[in-house]
Amino acid sequence: MRTLPPCTIILFGATGDLARKKLFPALHKLHGELHEKTRIIAVGRRDYDDAGFRSEFVTACDLDKKGVSSFCKRILYHRLDFDEKEGYVALQRKLNNLDPEIRDRRIVYLATAPEAFTFIAEQLTKNGIAVKNPKHGWHRIVIEKPFGHDLTSARNLNKRLSKRFHERQMYRIDHYLGKEFVQNIMALRFTNPLFNRLWSHEHIDNVQIVANETATVGTRGGYYDTSGALRDMLQSHLLQMLAITTMEEPRSLSPDEIRGKKLAILKAISRDAKTKKSIVLGQYRAGVINGIMVPDYTAEPGVAKRSRTETFAAMRLTIKNKRWSGVPFYLRTGKALMHHYAEVVVTFKPQECKLFCDIARRPQENILAVRIQPDQGVELRFNLKDPENEHVTLPLSMEYSRAAEFGENSKEAYERLLGDVMVGDQTLFTRWDEVEESWKIVDALRVSNTKIHLYDAGTHGPDAARKLLTDEKREWFGNRSIQCLHCTK
Amino acid sequence: MRTLPPCTIILFGATGDLARKKLFPALHKLHGELHEKTRIIAVGRRDYDDAGFRSEFVTACDLDKKGVSSFCKRILYHRLDFDEKEGYVALQRKLNNLDPEIRDRRIVYLATAPEAFTFIAEQLTKNGIAVKNPKHGWHRIVIEKPFGHDLTSARNLNKRLSKRFHERQMYRIDHYLGKEFVQNIMALRFTNPLFNRLWSHEHIDNVQIVANETATVGTRGGYYDTSGALRDMLQSHLLQMLAITTMEEPRSLSPDEIRGKKLAILKAISRDAKTKKSIVLGQYRAGVINGIMVPDYTAEPGVAKRSRTETFAAMRLTIKNKRWSGVPFYLRTGKALMHHYAEVVVTFKPQECKLFCDIARRPQENILAVRIQPDQGVELRFNLKDPENEHVTLPLSMEYSRAAEFGENSKEAYERLLGDVMVGDQTLFTRWDEVEESWKIVDALRVSNTKIHLYDAGTHGPDAARKLLTDEKREWFGNRSIQCLHCTK
Repeated sequence: MRTLPPCTIILFGATGDLARKKLFPALHKLHGELHEKTRIIAVGRRDYDDAGFRSEFVTACDLDKKGVSSFCKRILYHRLDFDEKEGYVALQRKLNNLDPEIRDRRIVYLATAPEAFTFIAEQLTKNGIAVKNPKHGWHRIVIEKPFGHDLTSARNLNKRLSKRFHERQMYRIDHYLGKEFVQNIMALRFTNPLFNRLWSHEHIDNVQIVANETATVGTRGGYYDTSGALRDMLQSHLLQMLAITTMEEPRSLSPDEIRGKKLAILKAISRDAKTKKSIVLGQYRAGVINGIMVPDYTAEPGVAKRSRTETFAAMRLTIKNKRWSGVPFYLRTGKALMHHYAEVVVTFKPQECKLFCDIARRPQENILAVRIQPDQGVELRFNLKDPENEHVTLPLSMEYSRAAEFGENSKEAYERLLGDVMVGDQTLFTRWDEVEESWKIVDALRVSNTKIHLYDAGTHGPDAARKLLTDEKREWFGNRSIQCLHCTK
Repeated sequence: MRTLPPCTIILFGATGDLARKKLFPALHKLHGELHEKTRIIAVGRRDYDDAGFRSEFVTACDLDKKGVSSFCKRILYHRLDFDEKEGYVALQRKLNNLDPEIRDRRIVYLATAPEAFTFIAEQLTKNGIAVKNPKHGWHRIVIEKPFGHDLTSARNLNKRLSKRFHERQMYRIDHYLGKEFVQNIMALRFTNPLFNRLWSHEHIDNVQIVANETATVGTRGGYYDTSGALRDMLQSHLLQMLAITTMEEPRSLSPDEIRGKKLAILKAISRDAKTKKSIVLGQYRAGVINGIMVPDYTAEPGVAKRSRTETFAAMRLTIKNKRWSGVPFYLRTGKALMHHYAEVVVTFKPQECKLFCDIARRPQENILAVRIQPDQGVELRFNLKDPENEHVTLPLSMEYSRAAEFGENSKEAYERLLGDVMVGDQTLFTRWDEVEESWKIVDALRVSNTKIHLYDAGTHGPDAARKLLTDEKREWFGNRSIQCLHCTK
């Protein structure tokens, strides 16, 4: 177990949704590992004192009950309107009064609306709260996505931030990278010759990368309607998963070595006319998900009545390099779908069918599926003899399930990533050039006149997304009826 | 489901151990599939009439209770001293009086002591019970192992039998070939490119073939003491499993195509001085197996007091062809051991360790284990990130278990093989040239002055067998403590 150094965590947006749902629960889980002197300065607009914030807000977060009161002692509240300069002066005064061991090691976590990022950053440096070259200790900035809205805005944001901070101080969160089984893709590929030796167009037929949600936009309609699936999911999570699945083997596990290999993939991703034509966008309309009726997307609070924002996207990408020549990568993500899951599915090419081939039934392709959420594990689809019929085979599965092996206790993504910031490990944070390249891809693929297919909530999404694969005689792995791992979730 | 034709099954040795433990239970399980007219003529020395044999012997076999009385109606008893000629005349008379639909389709199953084979065969042809060229229908002979005692005796036996029957009439039983997961080795290899593409010395480090028993010689001491592990297990089961695991891909599933490919492997198996030196023989002495004390082998009934018969054998073979150049094949079998199981274990070569390599811990080899008994299934050992330590991996398993998928109802080996005889499928029966080649190997490896290592009953066998692998920096897969699938069996 690594040792987390004493530090101050200054959390902007401490009374927001993310703080309540993810950050305080993650910090609470980390509590036992945190240095005893580490303090959390919760910064928010609402009127609390320390005791009030602890008793009213923190205890109302989704925490395990164990050790909450001891965890709360780490937390101080600082009221501040993000756009009022006086609050920053007071914040810096408060920070300077902290124990010398934590005073100069500062993590500023920006979990606010992205519009506030640049103003806050300006105030941080002006008041010495976090600066480019601190005299003592270190200052680190954690930036929640979205990092920009498109290439231009992302560049503007980065220009402003990079004036005030070094790249090595900036921790751009993509919480998918913190998920154990996204990280495991690297271990799976590079420590298992059985897979590694076959990891190329010679042996792989296609790769599917899926992040499907059953959730609707819910209370996030205001933000989501200005974003959509391509900006919200493709630019970050899906492209990162694709890059990790396909990158060349890094020479070491150093952050910049890995991020360099990922960048090379992002640069090689197709964005030509053919790719643009393969994009299927969708928007959900009313339907039933897990027995609950949900409204049309356009009837959700905060969403424009005639919105054309996509809540679903599927596409066929290619990677223009030697290893992946000719291999299609099918990506899919959406809201209000039938099943909630994320996975990477690698289908191997079949060999010429010589034995156990019947007109009616032939051996199936070997398939390796990495399950990222809610299940965490690996499934391998393979063939054995049908016990009822000597001359044909049945497709069967071997599975490894993390929960079955280790219980449900694997580290949550935010818990993992917060620890990484404390020890200064940038591996699982996206570097600027990766973000920039991802926006280039999204901007290239966001064609304004792309048709928006309506789909019923609670389905697999628009039929056009299914056709994208069936036209090429393939199938979405997660839609197959042969197994139904996701059904009960 | 295939249709089994109406026929007569003439079972010599019907009151013996094999009939009671295996053949009647298998025929009973097949009962529902057997043609309604099919009859079983139970031939034995003991004095029964039909009713007595059914009520005293058949119902005392290890049968499911369901449908026993209806099954019994198929069975007729015929008393016969194998060495008295008159009995055969009466048997032929009885057969000729059977329903014309079954009268001329005859399976003669020789489940007697092997010494009786040639005399019985002579009487069969002399009396027209089973002949080389029957005028109507077909006559088939099923011959239990051992087929000979060494190359010379096997050749003699075969010479006598082949004078009386065509090779295509002879069904030499190796019941291991009837085991679902021995057959599955072919499907696993040839319908899964993930394995098939890596199935050679380029990617495989070593192969282990194991058939360990917890049973002692029990009541079979008299026979066993003249045989031993090499003749009893290596000549048949182990070499057949090795051949199926390593043979070239057949062009079709036709019996002679497959048996031809197996023969090519048997011919290529090393029997040089180096191979002979690698043989470890053992004999059990008193010990505790599953809580029960067992005596020295030499104290078992029927065993010579100063017997040098091996109850354990382990060895390192090589195959002199291009595919298997340099790959060691470790075979092991024995009685009175700690665990009862048979498996084929393929260990893949590791790649150069570049990532996730620690001085203390490196990724483990990928291992594919085919479990033949008592579990039936496939296990794949692979590596994932250690959830406790970012920089190293843990060896983990994916498993497919036949029982978990289909219940415990897969066909027993004898059930399967008896059906094959009825439809005339020789695939899973050993052809004479395979038997001959196997005896050549056993004869070459049986060096009279090989040391006999004593080992305690209830252990993994002699330490020299462990050393055989550890000297080459390898390990018996089944001895590893990391998993203990076999422990509870």
